[in-house]
Amino acid sequence: MAQPVTPPRGMRDFLPADKARREHALGIIRASYAAHGFDEIETPVMEDSARLHSGLGGDNEKLAFAVMKRGLGAEDLAAAAESGDTLALADLGLRFDLTVPLARFYATHRAALPGVFRSIQIAPVWRAERPQKGRFRQFVQCDIDIIGEAGQLAEIELIGATAGTLDALGLTGCSIRINDRRILQALLAHWGVADGLYERALITIDKLDKIGTGGVADELAGLGIEANGIAATLDDIANAGWELLEGEVPAWLDREAYGELLALRAALPGVELVFDPTLVRGMGYYTGTIFEIAHPDLGYSLGGGGRYDGMIGRFLGSEVPACGFSIGFERIVDLLPADAASKANAVVLVHEKDADAAQLMAIKRQLVASGTRVRLEKRAKNFKALLERAEADGFTGFALLGNDVTDAGALEFKPLGG
Amino acid sequence: MAQPVTPPRGMRDFLPADKARREHALGIIRASYAAHGFDEIETPVMEDSARLHSGLGGDNEKLAFAVMKRGLGAEDLAAAAESGDTLALADLGLRFDLTVPLARFYATHRAALPGVFRSIQIAPVWRAERPQKGRFRQFVQCDIDIIGEAGQLAEIELIGATAGTLDALGLTGCSIRINDRRILQALLAHWGVADGLYERALITIDKLDKIGTGGVADELAGLGIEANGIAATLDDIANAGWELLEGEVPAWLDREAYGELLALRAALPGVELVFDPTLVRGMGYYTGTIFEIAHPDLGYSLGGGGRYDGMIGRFLGSEVPACGFSIGFERIVDLLPADAASKANAVVLVHEKDADAAQLMAIKRQLVASGTRVRLEKRAKNFKALLERAEADGFTGFALLGNDVTDAGALEFKPLGG
Repeated sequence: MAQPVTPPRGMRDFLPADKARREHALGIIRASYAAHGFDEIETPVMEDSARLHSGLGGDNEKLAFAVMKRGLGAEDLAAAAESGDTLALADLGLRFDLTVPLARFYATHRAALPGVFRSIQIAPVWRAERPQKGRFRQFVQCDIDIIGEAGQLAEIELIGATAGTLDALGLTGCSIRINDRRILQALLAHWGVADGLYERALITIDKLDKIGTGGVADELAGLGIEANGIAATLDDIANAGWELLEGEVPAWLDREAYGELLALRAALPGVELVFDPTLVRGMGYYTGTIFEIAHPDLGYSLGGGGRYDGMIGRFLGSEVPACGFSIGFERIVDLLPADAASKANAVVLVHEKDADAAQLMAIKRQLVASGTRVRLEKRAKNFKALLERAEADGFTGFALLGNDVTDAGALEFKPLGG
Repeated sequence: MAQPVTPPRGMRDFLPADKARREHALGIIRASYAAHGFDEIETPVMEDSARLHSGLGGDNEKLAFAVMKRGLGAEDLAAAAESGDTLALADLGLRFDLTVPLARFYATHRAALPGVFRSIQIAPVWRAERPQKGRFRQFVQCDIDIIGEAGQLAEIELIGATAGTLDALGLTGCSIRINDRRILQALLAHWGVADGLYERALITIDKLDKIGTGGVADELAGLGIEANGIAATLDDIANAGWELLEGEVPAWLDREAYGELLALRAALPGVELVFDPTLVRGMGYYTGTIFEIAHPDLGYSLGGGGRYDGMIGRFLGSEVPACGFSIGFERIVDLLPADAASKANAVVLVHEKDADAAQLMAIKRQLVASGTRVRLEKRAKNFKALLERAEADGFTGFALLGNDVTDAGALEFKPLGG
């Protein structure tokens, strides 16, 4: 038997039904974000290698696919063999996220953008990860970001736009968990944790869902963090939700952050917001509010984001406030119902083998002009299979087209799968 | 002054107005092709290096960006330095067209596709060309292909769908030049050209526009092709158009091909078809009908295609009939009017610096729910610049939002740029 022919490892093809579902969802997302005042941009899939490896991407930098310089000679290869520096052979790389390209884009075009720039980026990214279930080497990210707004109106607009978009997609039951890095920092300060240990302590707290408050307290003790009542405090706050901010608030709470969180909630009355003072979010670059989409049936989040003021200005050499929200497109598209793609009026015309092309095209033109999607099919032995295939591809009806028919009005349509 | 920050050489960013125009055009193209019975698919941007370099891509194979293997060690580099084979360091490459991926996709999924498969591919490709005006290293291709249909209904549906799509885009005045490789072959046979010289002779005839019939005759003579009356024959046929097939047809004309061309014309009464027996089209893989979109104001074509029966089955090891039509998206989008993007009702709300976020969001929600696109802007000194920016970004009106307004109904909208 011949070798099976497959796409590259960890990457996917999309057949018509899947592609239609994805495009339908992308259309809804685009329209919803645009309605909320965001503007879509696009950057090339590659960035200069030096930018991709400038430290903005954290661990993801190691996962960048490297694109070889053109016209490399034997000396270049020998030099790289000598130094062991394979990256010296690459001048470009495929982006592993949309944040590094956004920082580069903003540095390139700031003068042509509004003072507060609300961007949409919907585009594939690539990561050379070990392929595994549910993780791919090419996948689509959907990011919205607000650049240049230091106030919390940025967070509020981002969350409002995201919640509106989940609604527009018909994804019900989602809630948005929210916290502020300043609250976590205040908690660590309250426990007397040294600055240098913050990052490792946050990584531990991030595991609360998996290892419980006792597990977190043990792991923190292993880092030398052994304040009184760590497990008890975590127990108290982990499920307190908004009550923590409403009653007699703990003395350690960051006043500014919690005032802002209450104001944020007040501005988003229709959104299911859950305050979770133990929410961490993985990336190291967050500086303020952080948030995550939760769904009651799922053990993983459907997206997240937060404020990351230090980063977008990096290539400009200046501080630029920024806040972003990314929805997990690949996870979300899998949750949408199988028939989510819009089923327009779509018909199969089954014609005789010897049908006249001019007659076929005349009928097809009439139907297309009336807003109908038309597939021509030669009548064949496997008639049933042909109609099942068409139904799977989103067609809704069919008609037999005799060689004597000259007007679409004379066709008798029958529903598919009816 | 700081180093300017730019996208990689030969690649482009798209700012909001450009991106909106491109997405608007893509939406029209998608909907039109779908109406004509085509189904969109998607493949990964990378293919295995061996497939990209299997000979299907002609000269473009040399322009493929190569993606380095992960985890290369010093020995790999030393071995490549020794052999001089840089491609041994790459296992993947970025696609340089959409035809090689289509052949691979068809080999992977044939069992899940209809017997006659009409595909749409709208996606970027990459070529490591020397950057120059109007040529980019990343650009979008829009291909439709019909696989599995040996009869000329494939050509007819492709041309009908393409002409319908150009109409839908509002691109008037286009015509489609058409020819058949069998007619060119018959002409060369008539001149007594040896089989082995066909390809070089076709390359020469392809230059007719630039060097004229005399130039072509001279260059053919240089190849040793010196039949009587080459220049005269070319003069006779170059501008004859359909008349060549209607009156007393030259004896050398391929009967089958010209019968089919006349039938094709009869099946496409609304399409401006121009028969050009000297049309060649560059790629070597065409086997039958070839066609090209011409526009009276332009010295270059806006797309083209033809029948290429030998190619799609290559990875399957079987013969599969195939025919395709590619429109030049980058050229076409440049021809569309600047305001081609749909201008929905889109307004700017100019609010006070100390506006309450809850009030702002309540008004914004009302407007978004009513189908309006909304951008919030803080009132600032550069009021005029702010409105100009919004107009350039496609907004159509604005309103001042006092801190006392609690209902969108109380806003007074003024047109932008009015």
